[in-house]
Amino acid sequence: MTYELYYWPGIQGRGEFVRLVLEEAGADYIDVARGPKSKGQGLGPLMDILDGEDVERPPFAPPFLRDGDVIVGQTAAILFYLGPKLGLAPKSEIDRLWTHQIQLTITDLVAEAHDSHHPISVNLYYEDQKKEASRRAKDFREDRVPKFLNWFERILARNPHGDRHLVGKSLTYVDLSLFQVIEGLTYAFPRAMTRLLPDTPRIAALHDAVAERPRIKAYLASKRRLPRNDEGIFRRYPELDG
Amino acid sequence: MTYELYYWPGIQGRGEFVRLVLEEAGADYIDVARGPKSKGQGLGPLMDILDGEDVERPPFAPPFLRDGDVIVGQTAAILFYLGPKLGLAPKSEIDRLWTHQIQLTITDLVAEAHDSHHPISVNLYYEDQKKEASRRAKDFREDRVPKFLNWFERILARNPHGDRHLVGKSLTYVDLSLFQVIEGLTYAFPRAMTRLLPDTPRIAALHDAVAERPRIKAYLASKRRLPRNDEGIFRRYPELDG
Repeated sequence: MTYELYYWPGIQGRGEFVRLVLEEAGADYIDVARGPKSKGQGLGPLMDILDGEDVERPPFAPPFLRDGDVIVGQTAAILFYLGPKLGLAPKSEIDRLWTHQIQLTITDLVAEAHDSHHPISVNLYYEDQKKEASRRAKDFREDRVPKFLNWFERILARNPHGDRHLVGKSLTYVDLSLFQVIEGLTYAFPRAMTRLLPDTPRIAALHDAVAERPRIKAYLASKRRLPRNDEGIFRRYPELDG
Repeated sequence: MTYELYYWPGIQGRGEFVRLVLEEAGADYIDVARGPKSKGQGLGPLMDILDGEDVERPPFAPPFLRDGDVIVGQTAAILFYLGPKLGLAPKSEIDRLWTHQIQLTITDLVAEAHDSHHPISVNLYYEDQKKEASRRAKDFREDRVPKFLNWFERILARNPHGDRHLVGKSLTYVDLSLFQVIEGLTYAFPRAMTRLLPDTPRIAALHDAVAERPRIKAYLASKRRLPRNDEGIFRRYPELDG
Protein backbone atom coordinates (compact mmCIF):
# COMPACT_ATOMS: atom_id res chain seq x y z
CA MET A 1 0.00 0.00 0.00
CA THR A 2 1.44 3.35 -1.05
CA TYR A 3 0.73 6.24 1.30
CA GLU A 4 0.07 9.59 -0.30
CA LEU A 5 1.31 12.67 1.55
CA TYR A 6 -0.16 16.00 0.51
CA TYR A 7 1.68 19.14 1.53
CA TRP A 8 2.74 22.46 0.04
CA PRO A 9 5.80 21.91 -2.13
CA GLY A 10 8.94 23.91 -1.44
CA ILE A 11 8.98 23.91 2.36
CA GLN A 12 9.64 21.36 5.07
CA GLY A 13 6.85 22.86 7.16
CA ARG A 14 4.41 20.65 9.01
CA GLY A 15 4.69 18.03 6.29
CA GLU A 16 8.19 17.23 7.49
CA PHE A 17 6.92 15.62 10.69
CA VAL A 18 5.06 13.12 8.53
CA ARG A 19 7.96 12.63 6.08
CA LEU A 20 10.33 11.74 8.92
CA VAL A 21 8.01 8.97 10.11
CA LEU A 22 7.53 7.55 6.62
CA GLU A 23 11.29 7.68 6.00
CA GLU A 24 12.30 6.11 9.29
CA ALA A 25 9.87 3.25 8.63
CA GLY A 26 11.04 2.81 5.05
CA ALA A 27 7.39 3.14 4.03
CA ASP A 28 6.28 3.32 0.44
CA TYR A 29 4.93 6.84 -0.11
CA ILE A 30 4.43 9.56 -2.66
CA ASP A 31 4.95 13.22 -1.81
CA VAL A 32 2.10 14.09 -4.13
CA ALA A 33 2.36 17.86 -4.55
CA ARG A 34 6.08 17.59 -5.34
CA GLY A 35 5.49 15.00 -8.07
CA PRO A 36 5.17 15.62 -11.81
CA LYS A 37 1.90 16.69 -13.39
CA SER A 38 2.47 14.04 -16.06
CA LYS A 39 1.94 11.37 -13.39
CA GLY A 40 -1.22 13.01 -12.07
CA GLN A 41 0.71 14.60 -9.22
CA GLY A 42 1.58 18.22 -8.37
CA LEU A 43 -0.57 20.83 -6.64
CA GLY A 44 -3.72 19.94 -8.62
CA PRO A 45 -4.63 16.79 -6.68
CA LEU A 46 -3.92 18.57 -3.39
CA MET A 47 -6.31 21.39 -4.26
CA ASP A 48 -8.88 18.87 -5.50
CA ILE A 49 -9.08 17.28 -2.07
CA LEU A 50 -8.95 20.59 -0.20
CA ASP A 51 -11.58 22.34 -2.31
CA GLY A 52 -13.41 19.53 -4.12
CA GLU A 53 -17.14 19.64 -3.53
CA ASP A 54 -17.49 15.86 -3.45
CA VAL A 55 -14.98 15.26 -0.64
CA GLU A 56 -17.02 14.13 2.34
CA ARG A 57 -14.33 14.82 4.90
CA PRO A 58 -12.10 17.59 3.58
CA PRO A 59 -9.10 18.52 5.72
CA PHE A 60 -8.95 22.13 6.90
CA ALA A 61 -5.38 22.52 5.63
CA PRO A 62 -2.32 20.54 4.51
CA PRO A 63 -0.62 18.34 5.46
CA PHE A 64 -2.98 15.45 4.98
CA LEU A 65 -2.44 11.80 4.27
CA ARG A 66 -4.36 9.51 2.00
CA ASP A 67 -4.34 5.80 2.76
CA GLY A 68 -6.75 4.13 0.37
CA ASP A 69 -10.18 5.53 1.18
CA VAL A 70 -9.05 7.26 4.33
CA ILE A 71 -7.98 10.90 4.35
CA VAL A 72 -6.48 12.20 7.58
CA GLY A 73 -5.59 15.84 8.24
CA GLN A 74 -3.90 17.59 11.19
CA THR A 75 -0.26 16.64 11.67
CA ALA A 76 -0.71 15.13 15.13
CA ALA A 77 -3.70 13.06 13.97
CA ILE A 78 -1.74 11.80 10.97
CA LEU A 79 1.06 10.63 13.25
CA PHE A 80 -1.42 9.08 15.67
CA TYR A 81 -2.81 7.13 12.71
CA LEU A 82 0.51 6.20 11.13
CA GLY A 83 2.58 5.51 14.25
CA PRO A 84 1.09 2.10 15.12
CA LYS A 85 0.99 0.98 11.48
CA LEU A 86 4.67 1.79 11.02
CA GLY A 87 5.94 0.43 14.32
CA LEU A 88 6.67 3.90 15.65
CA ALA A 89 4.14 4.05 18.48
CA PRO A 90 4.00 2.23 21.81
CA LYS A 91 1.72 -0.78 22.16
CA SER A 92 -0.81 0.13 24.85
CA GLU A 93 -3.64 2.58 24.32
CA ILE A 94 -2.71 4.64 27.32
CA ASP A 95 0.92 4.93 26.19
CA ARG A 96 -0.32 5.94 22.76
CA LEU A 97 -2.43 8.68 24.31
CA TRP A 98 0.58 9.95 26.24
CA THR A 99 2.66 9.94 23.06
CA HIS A 100 -0.10 11.88 21.33
CA GLN A 101 -0.21 14.37 24.20
CA ILE A 102 3.48 15.04 23.70
CA GLN A 103 2.90 15.49 19.96
CA LEU A 104 0.09 17.98 20.65
CA THR A 105 2.47 19.96 22.81
CA ILE A 106 4.98 19.93 19.95
CA THR A 107 2.13 21.18 17.75
CA ASP A 108 1.65 24.12 20.11
CA LEU A 109 5.36 24.93 20.03
CA VAL A 110 5.41 24.77 16.23
CA ALA A 111 2.46 27.17 15.98
CA GLU A 112 4.26 29.59 18.31
CA ALA A 113 7.47 29.27 16.29
CA HIS A 114 5.51 30.29 13.21
CA ASP A 115 3.90 33.22 14.97
CA SER A 116 7.30 34.45 16.16
CA HIS A 117 7.76 35.88 12.63
CA HIS A 118 4.05 36.22 11.77
CA PRO A 119 2.37 37.52 14.93
CA ILE A 120 -0.26 39.56 13.10
CA SER A 121 -1.38 37.66 10.02
CA VAL A 122 -0.50 34.77 7.74
CA ASN A 123 -1.82 36.97 4.95
CA LEU A 124 0.87 39.63 5.33
CA TYR A 125 4.57 39.49 4.53
CA TYR A 126 7.07 39.37 7.35
CA GLU A 127 8.18 42.87 6.39
CA ASP A 128 4.69 44.13 7.17
CA GLN A 129 4.77 42.79 10.74
CA LYS A 130 8.46 43.10 11.49
CA LYS A 131 8.12 45.39 14.48
CA GLU A 132 5.52 43.15 16.10
CA ALA A 133 7.62 40.08 15.27
CA SER A 134 10.56 41.58 17.10
CA ARG A 135 8.51 41.82 20.31
CA ARG A 136 6.93 38.40 19.93
CA ALA A 137 10.21 36.66 19.06
CA LYS A 138 11.83 38.07 22.19
CA ASP A 139 9.08 36.55 24.32
CA PHE A 140 9.26 33.33 22.33
CA ARG A 141 12.99 32.75 22.75
CA GLU A 142 13.26 34.08 26.30
CA ASP A 143 10.15 32.58 27.84
CA ARG A 144 8.30 30.13 25.64
CA VAL A 145 11.16 28.08 24.15
CA PRO A 146 12.80 27.49 27.55
CA LYS A 147 9.41 26.51 29.01
CA PHE A 148 8.81 23.95 26.26
CA LEU A 149 12.39 22.63 26.27
CA ASN A 150 12.37 22.22 30.02
CA TRP A 151 9.19 20.18 29.77
CA PHE A 152 10.63 17.86 27.14
CA GLU A 153 13.82 17.48 29.17
CA ARG A 154 11.77 16.68 32.26
CA ILE A 155 9.73 13.95 30.61
CA LEU A 156 12.87 12.46 29.09
CA ALA A 157 14.41 12.40 32.55
CA ARG A 158 11.29 10.79 34.04
CA ASN A 159 10.83 8.09 31.43
CA PRO A 160 11.17 4.93 33.55
CA HIS A 161 12.67 3.13 30.54
CA GLY A 162 15.54 5.59 30.28
CA ASP A 163 16.17 9.05 28.93
CA ARG A 164 17.07 8.10 25.38
CA HIS A 165 13.45 8.25 24.24
CA LEU A 166 10.42 10.33 25.16
CA VAL A 167 8.18 7.27 25.57
CA GLY A 168 9.13 3.69 26.36
CA LYS A 169 12.43 2.07 25.50
CA SER A 170 12.45 2.48 21.74
CA LEU A 171 11.94 5.10 19.09
CA THR A 172 8.45 6.54 18.57
CA TYR A 173 7.24 9.26 16.24
CA VAL A 174 7.52 11.96 18.91
CA ASP A 175 11.27 11.41 19.09
CA LEU A 176 11.41 12.19 15.37
CA SER A 177 9.21 15.25 15.84
CA LEU A 178 11.35 16.57 18.68
CA PHE A 179 14.41 16.11 16.45
CA GLN A 180 12.73 18.23 13.77
CA VAL A 181 11.76 20.93 16.24
CA ILE A 182 15.36 21.19 17.45
CA GLU A 183 16.55 21.31 13.83
CA GLY A 184 14.13 24.13 13.16
CA LEU A 185 14.81 26.14 16.29
CA THR A 186 18.56 25.82 15.81
CA TYR A 187 18.20 27.07 12.25
CA ALA A 188 15.93 29.98 13.17
CA PHE A 189 17.50 31.02 16.46
CA PRO A 190 21.15 29.88 16.39
CA ARG A 191 22.30 32.31 19.06
CA ALA A 192 19.44 31.61 21.44
CA MET A 193 19.77 27.86 20.97
CA THR A 194 23.53 27.93 21.57
CA ARG A 195 22.67 29.35 24.97
CA LEU A 196 19.66 27.12 25.70
CA LEU A 197 20.51 23.67 24.44
CA PRO A 198 23.36 22.92 26.90
CA ASP A 199 20.77 23.20 29.68
CA THR A 200 18.76 20.34 28.17
CA PRO A 201 21.41 17.70 27.46
CA ARG A 202 18.91 14.86 27.04
CA ILE A 203 17.17 16.70 24.24
CA ALA A 204 20.49 17.45 22.57
CA ALA A 205 21.52 13.79 22.80
CA LEU A 206 18.17 12.62 21.42
CA HIS A 207 18.50 15.03 18.51
CA ASP A 208 21.98 13.77 17.66
CA ALA A 209 20.97 10.13 17.98
CA VAL A 210 18.03 10.57 15.60
CA ALA A 211 20.29 12.27 13.05
CA GLU A 212 22.53 9.19 13.10
CA ARG A 213 19.82 6.62 12.50
CA PRO A 214 20.68 4.99 9.16
CA ARG A 215 17.44 5.75 7.34
CA ILE A 216 17.16 9.28 8.72
CA LYS A 217 20.80 9.96 7.88
CA ALA A 218 20.26 8.75 4.30
CA TYR A 219 17.08 10.79 4.05
CA LEU A 220 18.71 13.98 5.33
CA ALA A 221 21.44 13.60 2.70
CA SER A 222 18.91 12.94 -0.09
CA LYS A 223 17.06 15.31 -2.38
CA ARG A 224 13.84 14.25 -0.73
CA ARG A 225 14.83 16.41 2.25
CA LEU A 226 14.03 19.96 1.21
CA PRO A 227 16.71 22.49 2.04
CA ARG A 228 15.85 24.89 4.83
CA ASN A 229 14.58 28.23 3.64
CA ASP A 230 12.77 31.28 4.90
CA GLU A 231 9.33 30.45 3.56
CA GLY A 232 8.25 27.95 6.19
CA ILE A 233 7.66 27.69 9.90
CA PHE A 234 11.24 28.14 11.02
CA ARG A 235 12.92 31.17 9.47
CA ARG A 236 16.30 32.67 10.07
CA TYR A 237 15.80 36.38 10.53
CA PRO A 238 18.88 37.41 12.54
CA GLU A 239 17.06 40.40 14.02
CA LEU A 240 14.64 37.99 15.74
CA ASP A 241 17.47 36.05 17.38
CA GLY A 242 18.30 38.75 19.93
CA MET B 1 -15.64 6.43 39.24
CA THR B 2 -15.34 10.17 39.82
CA TYR B 3 -13.43 12.08 37.17
CA GLU B 4 -11.23 14.91 38.36
CA LEU B 5 -10.94 17.94 36.12
CA TYR B 6 -8.05 20.30 36.79
CA TYR B 7 -8.23 23.78 35.35
CA TRP B 8 -7.54 27.37 36.38
CA PRO B 9 -10.44 28.58 38.50
CA GLY B 10 -12.30 31.71 37.49
CA ILE B 11 -12.46 31.29 33.72
CA GLN B 12 -14.32 29.04 31.33
CA GLY B 13 -11.21 28.79 29.14
CA ARG B 14 -10.14 25.49 27.64
CA GLY B 15 -11.53 23.66 30.66
CA GLU B 16 -15.04 24.46 29.47
CA PHE B 17 -14.77 22.06 26.52
CA VAL B 18 -14.25 19.26 29.04
CA ARG B 19 -16.95 20.49 31.42
CA LEU B 20 -19.55 20.48 28.65
CA VAL B 21 -18.83 16.83 27.86
CA LEU B 22 -18.98 15.80 31.51
CA GLU B 23 -22.21 17.74 32.02
CA GLU B 24 -23.95 16.43 28.90
CA ALA B 25 -23.11 12.88 29.96
CA GLY B 26 -24.24 13.48 33.53
CA ALA B 27 -20.84 12.17 34.62
CA ASP B 28 -19.66 12.24 38.18
CA TYR B 29 -16.82 14.76 38.36
CA ILE B 30 -15.02 17.20 40.57
CA ASP B 31 -13.80 20.55 39.27
CA VAL B 32 -10.80 20.26 41.57
CA ALA B 33 -9.25 23.73 41.51
CA ARG B 34 -12.63 25.33 42.23
CA GLY B 35 -13.24 23.12 45.24
CA PRO B 36 -12.54 23.95 48.91
CA LYS B 37 -9.13 23.52 50.45
CA SER B 38 -10.82 21.82 53.40
CA LYS B 39 -11.67 18.92 51.09
CA GLY B 40 -8.16 18.70 49.66
CA GLN B 41 -9.18 20.67 46.60
CA GLY B 42 -8.26 24.13 45.29
CA LEU B 43 -5.20 25.21 43.34
CA GLY B 44 -2.79 23.19 45.48
CA PRO B 45 -3.52 19.76 43.97
CA LEU B 46 -3.40 21.27 40.47
CA MET B 47 0.05 22.70 41.06
CA ASP B 48 1.18 19.44 42.68
CA ILE B 49 0.50 17.55 39.47
CA LEU B 50 1.88 20.27 37.23
CA ASP B 51 5.10 20.82 39.17
CA GLY B 52 5.43 17.73 41.35
CA GLU B 53 8.76 16.00 40.89
CA ASP B 54 7.29 12.53 41.28
CA VAL B 55 4.73 12.85 38.48
CA GLU B 56 5.91 10.54 35.72
CA ARG B 57 3.78 12.10 33.01
CA PRO B 58 3.16 15.74 33.92
CA PRO B 59 0.88 17.69 31.59
CA PHE B 60 2.40 20.78 29.98
CA ALA B 61 -0.53 22.95 31.08
CA PRO B 62 -4.12 22.78 32.35
CA PRO B 63 -6.70 21.53 31.60
CA PHE B 64 -5.95 17.96 32.51
CA LEU B 65 -8.12 15.11 33.64
CA ARG B 66 -7.44 12.47 36.23
CA ASP B 67 -9.21 9.16 35.92
CA GLY B 68 -7.80 6.85 38.56
CA ASP B 69 -4.14 6.35 37.69
CA VAL B 70 -4.42 8.04 34.32
CA ILE B 71 -3.65 11.72 33.84
CA VAL B 72 -4.47 13.17 30.43
CA GLY B 73 -3.56 16.68 29.30
CA GLN B 74 -4.31 18.66 26.13
CA THR B 75 -7.99 19.46 25.65
CA ALA B 76 -8.40 17.52 22.41
CA ALA B 77 -6.70 14.45 23.90
CA ILE B 78 -8.94 14.62 26.98
CA LEU B 79 -12.03 14.64 24.77
CA PHE B 80 -10.63 11.83 22.63
CA TYR B 81 -10.22 9.83 25.85
CA LEU B 82 -13.56 10.76 27.43
CA GLY B 83 -15.79 10.75 24.34
CA PRO B 84 -16.12 6.98 23.94
CA LYS B 85 -16.43 6.38 27.68
CA LEU B 86 -19.29 8.86 27.94
CA GLY B 87 -21.15 7.88 24.78
CA LEU B 88 -20.20 11.10 23.03
CA ALA B 89 -17.99 9.71 20.27
CA PRO B 90 -18.80 7.63 17.21
CA LYS B 91 -18.23 3.89 17.28
CA SER B 92 -15.65 3.18 14.59
CA GLU B 93 -11.99 4.05 14.89
CA ILE B 94 -11.94 5.95 11.64
CA ASP B 95 -14.96 8.03 12.62
CA ARG B 96 -13.28 8.75 15.93
CA LEU B 97 -10.19 9.97 14.14
CA TRP B 98 -12.31 12.27 11.97
CA THR B 99 -14.05 13.61 15.09
CA HIS B 100 -10.65 14.21 16.64
CA GLN B 101 -9.47 16.00 13.49
CA ILE B 102 -12.40 18.38 13.80
CA GLN B 103 -11.56 18.94 17.47
CA LEU B 104 -7.93 19.72 16.58
CA THR B 105 -9.18 22.32 14.11
CA ILE B 106 -11.32 23.82 16.88
CA THR B 107 -8.15 23.83 19.01
CA ASP B 108 -6.41 25.89 16.32
CA LEU B 109 -9.29 28.36 16.18
CA VAL B 110 -9.30 28.69 19.98
CA ALA B 111 -5.56 29.45 20.01
CA GLU B 112 -6.07 32.11 17.36
CA ALA B 113 -9.00 33.57 19.30
CA HIS B 114 -6.70 33.91 22.30
CA ASP B 115 -3.96 35.52 20.25
CA SER B 116 -6.41 38.06 18.82
CA HIS B 117 -6.04 39.93 22.13
CA HIS B 118 -2.59 38.60 23.06
CA PRO B 119 -0.58 38.57 19.82
CA ILE B 120 2.75 39.35 21.48
CA SER B 121 2.94 37.52 24.78
CA VAL B 122 0.89 35.69 27.37
CA ASN B 123 3.16 37.33 29.91
CA LEU B 124 2.03 40.88 29.14
CA TYR B 125 -1.28 42.57 29.84
CA TYR B 126 -3.64 43.29 26.97
CA GLU B 127 -2.93 47.00 27.48
CA ASP B 128 0.72 46.37 26.66
CA GLN B 129 -0.09 44.83 23.28
CA LYS B 130 -3.23 46.74 22.39
CA LYS B 131 -1.95 48.22 19.15
CA GLU B 132 -0.76 44.84 17.89
CA ALA B 133 -4.02 43.24 19.02
CA SER B 134 -5.95 45.71 16.94
CA ARG B 135 -4.14 44.56 13.78
CA ARG B 136 -4.35 40.88 14.61
CA ALA B 137 -8.03 41.01 15.59
CA LYS B 138 -8.89 42.63 12.26
CA ASP B 139 -7.25 39.75 10.42
CA PHE B 140 -8.86 37.25 12.77
CA ARG B 141 -12.45 38.45 12.32
CA GLU B 142 -12.16 39.31 8.62
CA ASP B 143 -10.16 36.35 7.36
CA ARG B 144 -9.64 33.59 9.90
CA VAL B 145 -13.06 33.33 11.54
CA PRO B 146 -14.89 33.18 8.18
CA LYS B 147 -12.43 30.55 6.96
CA PHE B 148 -12.99 28.35 10.02
CA LEU B 149 -16.78 28.89 10.07
CA ASN B 150 -17.07 28.06 6.38
CA TRP B 151 -15.20 24.83 6.97
CA PHE B 152 -17.48 23.78 9.84
CA GLU B 153 -20.54 24.71 7.76
CA ARG B 154 -19.21 22.67 4.86
CA ILE B 155 -18.63 19.52 6.89
CA LEU B 156 -22.07 19.88 8.48
CA ALA B 157 -23.57 20.12 4.99
CA ARG B 158 -21.61 17.08 3.82
CA ASN B 159 -22.40 14.82 6.75
CA PRO B 160 -24.23 11.96 5.02
CA HIS B 161 -26.31 11.45 8.17
CA GLY B 162 -27.68 14.98 8.05
CA ASP B 163 -26.57 18.47 8.95
CA ARG B 164 -27.71 18.48 12.57
CA HIS B 165 -24.40 17.04 13.79
CA LEU B 166 -20.79 17.33 12.71
CA VAL B 167 -20.24 13.57 12.73
CA GLY B 168 -22.79 10.78 12.34
CA LYS B 169 -26.43 11.02 13.32
CA SER B 170 -26.15 11.83 16.98
CA LEU B 171 -24.39 14.20 19.33
CA THR B 172 -20.61 13.90 19.77
CA TYR B 173 -18.20 15.98 21.78
CA VAL B 174 -17.26 18.15 18.79
CA ASP B 175 -20.84 19.42 18.58
CA LEU B 176 -20.48 20.61 22.18
CA SER B 177 -17.11 22.20 21.40
CA LEU B 178 -18.47 24.02 18.36
CA PHE B 179 -21.31 25.31 20.54
CA GLN B 180 -18.77 26.70 23.00
CA VAL B 181 -16.71 28.32 20.23
CA ILE B 182 -19.80 30.09 18.90
CA GLU B 183 -20.68 31.18 22.43
CA GLY B 184 -17.19 32.59 22.83
CA LEU B 185 -16.94 34.29 19.47
CA THR B 186 -20.39 35.83 19.89
CA TYR B 187 -19.39 37.18 23.27
CA ALA B 188 -16.05 38.55 22.07
CA PHE B 189 -17.05 39.81 18.63
CA PRO B 190 -20.80 40.54 18.75
CA ARG B 191 -20.74 42.89 15.77
CA ALA B 192 -18.62 40.64 13.56
CA MET B 193 -20.66 37.55 14.47
CA THR B 194 -23.96 39.32 13.76
CA ARG B 195 -22.66 39.77 10.23
CA LEU B 196 -21.09 36.32 9.86
CA LEU B 197 -23.40 33.83 11.52
CA PRO B 198 -26.33 34.22 9.07
CA ASP B 199 -23.99 32.90 6.35
CA THR B 200 -23.54 29.64 8.26
CA PRO B 201 -27.10 28.68 9.22
CA ARG B 202 -26.21 25.06 10.04
CA ILE B 203 -23.71 26.19 12.66
CA ALA B 204 -26.24 28.61 14.12
CA ALA B 205 -28.87 25.85 14.30
CA LEU B 206 -26.41 23.43 15.91
CA HIS B 207 -25.48 26.04 18.50
CA ASP B 208 -29.13 26.68 19.38
CA ALA B 209 -29.96 22.97 19.54
CA VAL B 210 -27.08 22.27 21.94
CA ALA B 211 -28.20 25.13 24.19
CA GLU B 212 -31.63 23.49 24.44
CA ARG B 213 -30.43 20.03 25.43
CA PRO B 214 -31.86 19.41 28.91
CA ARG B 215 -28.58 18.76 30.71
CA ILE B 216 -26.73 21.57 28.93
CA LYS B 217 -29.59 23.98 29.59
CA ALA B 218 -29.57 23.09 33.27
CA TYR B 219 -25.80 23.41 33.38
CA LEU B 220 -25.78 26.81 31.69
CA ALA B 221 -28.28 28.07 34.25
CA SER B 222 -26.30 26.66 37.18
CA LYS B 223 -23.47 28.11 39.23
CA ARG B 224 -21.16 25.48 37.81
CA ARG B 225 -21.13 27.47 34.55
CA LEU B 226 -18.73 30.33 35.20
CA PRO B 227 -19.91 33.71 33.97
CA ARG B 228 -18.10 35.07 30.95
CA ASN B 229 -15.39 37.55 31.77
CA ASP B 230 -12.40 39.21 30.20
CA GLU B 231 -9.71 37.02 31.75
CA GLY B 232 -9.99 34.01 29.46
CA ILE B 233 -9.72 33.06 25.82
CA PHE B 234 -12.72 35.00 24.56
CA ARG B 235 -12.72 38.62 25.69
CA ARG B 236 -15.01 41.46 24.82
CA TYR B 237 -12.83 44.40 23.91
CA PRO B 238 -15.14 46.54 21.72
CA GLU B 239 -12.17 48.10 19.94
CA LEU B 240 -11.22 44.64 18.60
CA ASP B 241 -14.66 44.07 17.13
CA GLY B 242 -14.23 46.49 14.24
